[in-house]
Amino acid sequence: MKLRRIGIIKNRTEKPAMVSGRDGLELQDDFDKAIEKLHKTSEDISEIIINEDLTAILDGIDEFSHIIVLYWGHKVSEEGRSLTRVHPMGKKEFPFTGIAATCSPARPNPVLMTVVRLCGRKGNQLQVTGLDAINESPVIDIKPYVRELFPQEDVMEAEWMQKAVKKFNDGSR
Amino acid sequence: MKLRRIGIIKNRTEKPAMVSGRDGLELQDDFDKAIEKLHKTSEDISEIIINEDLTAILDGIDEFSHIIVLYWGHKVSEEGRSLTRVHPMGKKEFPFTGIAATCSPARPNPVLMTVVRLCGRKGNQLQVTGLDAINESPVIDIKPYVRELFPQEDVMEAEWMQKAVKKFNDGSR
Repeated sequence: MKLRRIGIIKNRTEKPAMVSGRDGLELQDDFDKAIEKLHKTSEDISEIIINEDLTAILDGIDEFSHIIVLYWGHKVSEEGRSLTRVHPMGKKEFPFTGIAATCSPARPNPVLMTVVRLCGRKGNQLQVTGLDAINESPVIDIKPYVRELFPQEDVMEAEWMQKAVKKFNDGSR
Repeated sequence: MKLRRIGIIKNRTEKPAMVSGRDGLELQDDFDKAIEKLHKTSEDISEIIINEDLTAILDGIDEFSHIIVLYWGHKVSEEGRSLTRVHPMGKKEFPFTGIAATCSPARPNPVLMTVVRLCGRKGNQLQVTGLDAINESPVIDIKPYVRELFPQEDVMEAEWMQKAVKKFNDGSR
């Protein structure tokens, strides 16, 4: 299963918020500062530049307001790929949790995903907001966001995740 | 960018609903029958069997009601990977559209994604419903579904997609 780089992400985020090593995840700033940065980033515009020979795959994309971007966590080390459990966001108060139950970028296959708002297309370039990738991340896939294909019923989330989401939402006010 | 197979999907869906060739996508049944099948499949239980040495990545997953499954479209041919535009679902009435604006399994990187309901976990095995993968699909990643990370505002979708979704919803009654 070999991936092709179909494009590249360009933005002003040079450093990942978290770094993974043998001991798990480590936030590069304190938690509050990291949340603040994440917010700032989510309002910044990122460019997605698709390989020129693949420009046609974007035809019709501007009829969607939101798209799903799959990209490669190119800063995730081999050690990061072999982690199986972490304290989410490197926070010891959060339970030691299996990688599949977290949004950690360090995971066996660092295929990262964000749903972003599509602001415009010019040829092989897309402008989007809300993309929390770092600069130069390779693009793996783009899909339309179709709300009806996501759960319409109630959903349950782990308590630590609810706390993290609340922290993020509070930080945005 | 090399993917590892972290597990495998087991279910009763043996044949893909669509096959891709040089000429684009072709539905294997007529449209109504395909929609009906898709429905049936979406109620069936699939098993996700994670490699035994990675069992720990699932710890804590059962605190989420829904998970995102990334899997590999292993039946997508090389020809399918080189398509850039298709008539969605092989339907000529739908506009000739860039792959990135469709949910076509045939795409440059056939990393397919479905949000499913998690019914249970037993060791390295998950039982889920709503997974429209075919039997023996390799699993690439599992992530928790966190509603707050998806658009909370209004979304816009292409007209043909709205029609397809409506057809699917009508079919379920």
